[in-house]
Amino acid sequence: MKAGGKEYRTVWMEDGKIFAIDQTALPQKFKIAKIRRWRGMVAAIKNMIIRGAPAIGAAAAFGLAIAPESEFDKAYNALAASRPTARDLFTALEYMRKAKENGKNLADAAQQYADNLVEICRKIGENGAPLIKDGMRILTHCNAGALAALEWGTALAPIILAHRQGKKISIFVDETRPRLQGILTSWELAGEGIEHYLIADNAAGHFMQRGEIDIVITGSDRIARNGDAANKIGTYEKAVVARENKIPFYIAAPSTTLDLSLASGDNVHIEERSPEEVLNFVGRRIAPAGAKARNPAFDATPARYITGIITEKGIFKPEEIAAHF
Amino acid sequence: MKAGGKEYRTVWMEDGKIFAIDQTALPQKFKIAKIRRWRGMVAAIKNMIIRGAPAIGAAAAFGLAIAPESEFDKAYNALAASRPTARDLFTALEYMRKAKENGKNLADAAQQYADNLVEICRKIGENGAPLIKDGMRILTHCNAGALAALEWGTALAPIILAHRQGKKISIFVDETRPRLQGILTSWELAGEGIEHYLIADNAAGHFMQRGEIDIVITGSDRIARNGDAANKIGTYEKAVVARENKIPFYIAAPSTTLDLSLASGDNVHIEERSPEEVLNFVGRRIAPAGAKARNPAFDATPARYITGIITEKGIFKPEEIAAHF
Repeated sequence: MKAGGKEYRTVWMEDGKIFAIDQTALPQKFKIAKIRRWRGMVAAIKNMIIRGAPAIGAAAAFGLAIAPESEFDKAYNALAASRPTARDLFTALEYMRKAKENGKNLADAAQQYADNLVEICRKIGENGAPLIKDGMRILTHCNAGALAALEWGTALAPIILAHRQGKKISIFVDETRPRLQGILTSWELAGEGIEHYLIADNAAGHFMQRGEIDIVITGSDRIARNGDAANKIGTYEKAVVARENKIPFYIAAPSTTLDLSLASGDNVHIEERSPEEVLNFVGRRIAPAGAKARNPAFDATPARYITGIITEKGIFKPEEIAAHF
Repeated sequence: MKAGGKEYRTVWMEDGKIFAIDQTALPQKFKIAKIRRWRGMVAAIKNMIIRGAPAIGAAAAFGLAIAPESEFDKAYNALAASRPTARDLFTALEYMRKAKENGKNLADAAQQYADNLVEICRKIGENGAPLIKDGMRILTHCNAGALAALEWGTALAPIILAHRQGKKISIFVDETRPRLQGILTSWELAGEGIEHYLIADNAAGHFMQRGEIDIVITGSDRIARNGDAANKIGTYEKAVVARENKIPFYIAAPSTTLDLSLASGDNVHIEERSPEEVLNFVGRRIAPAGAKARNPAFDATPARYITGIITEKGIFKPEEIAAHF
């Protein structure tokens, strides 16, 4: 993605050091975080300096690449526990373990994983762009853009490509409380010059009901064998309301998001984050003293609400996806 | 409601002056606003110092009571335009116009309107409380409590009464972006000692899907002839997801919310508030420079998603409500 006239990936490695766009500082500040040790990478993922399932995978690969050999297993386990819902994280860690077993240079392997991810996202864009017709109004939830996936993004890849193809489109962006990743999406879309509107998460249903949304596209953190898809909290509501209003609902995700060991979305481990994210807002207390909160970070959308899953290998019906991979 | 050991109504009149709990300052500060002129009342409603359909009605009645006779029509029209979605506002204004035509003292008439409203809410509580069984987990959206209706509230009246009857209950409170009225609900529930959890609006669907919510109760700002109900933005989504999960969804509202001139929810005028409410959060800019937003304040929930409407005269199926009034 472009920032200050320069092209960036969300996270990258240079001379044995890892650099990442600090997503907790955006859009107010464009800040580059420097990560020198694998423990720093664990913290960066936990604190969401780096976020988005595909980007987390690449970040974890880089994290293992800078771990001393004697600490590889320790680093592997700590990274694996950093954000338990993201499937790509495990794919990336396993990729690195195999690279190590095969005696490969781990920095090269991590770089290859990252380059491969970028190519996958570009293909997701190519496969998904034909779904987007001229004049369409598209709803997206959370951030499944370049920030979440090094370049292109997953849900945003077809949108960016459709825009570059000259289609006139307009995007409704859920702000995505509690962490407000919709603001990251707004920042990316502004960088691409794509018309969009931020909306409260509550407003998405209203716009669907009033015929102002033609298609919904979101990312996914983990897809079960039966096509159920875990994604940022609130995705399930949007999918239910989309079906109710006969609006196509697509998931865009690399095939590495698929977790064949998982029978359905009911079994997916949903990360519960700190209640403080709900009780406070960008560092300011909003709730009454003593108030409690619940804060699930993800939910699982059953396959029956999903029109199709856009992958680097094509678009599949959710119930067919396991057979393809 | 109780604050600092004293009993308060949301808005009241004393010696020709109007006082109101400033709802924009809660829960951080408990502040009483003094309103000396009808124009001040228009501003207080627009800026949501006073909010909630029933409370707006009472506030408008008080506002007309302090207007000079020569400015009655001007005040009437300005108050009518202050929050266009709330039906009670018009009921209250018409009540005051009739009182004037009948030569009644307007301060007495407004006081009577307010006292009557409190009695109505108490009855809503009595009628709704039997729906709430011991051990139930209840979802509510926005604030339909004492702050929204002088005392008791509408959606909160059955909840408060059930709690006082000794039923052990637990409330999930949607924070209700963009204005965060869920925090007002949390403040009220804390005052009553009722166990509750604030949640991001996005999380309600997840808890419904996972079987953690037994019943949904919200207020309403305007109910159409066919039983469609307008309420705070996001109510529609919750209702759709509730039905999808076979969870009863109730509206609690005084019968004055019913607008017989309105055929259905499709015709309800939805107030669009300033985009700044979405682009900023409690006064702090969160969106990227130049970002645009859409900000509908209400949505309309079709009758087919509503299990029943709890009024002061009993609980009715939405499609039967017009016949009863």
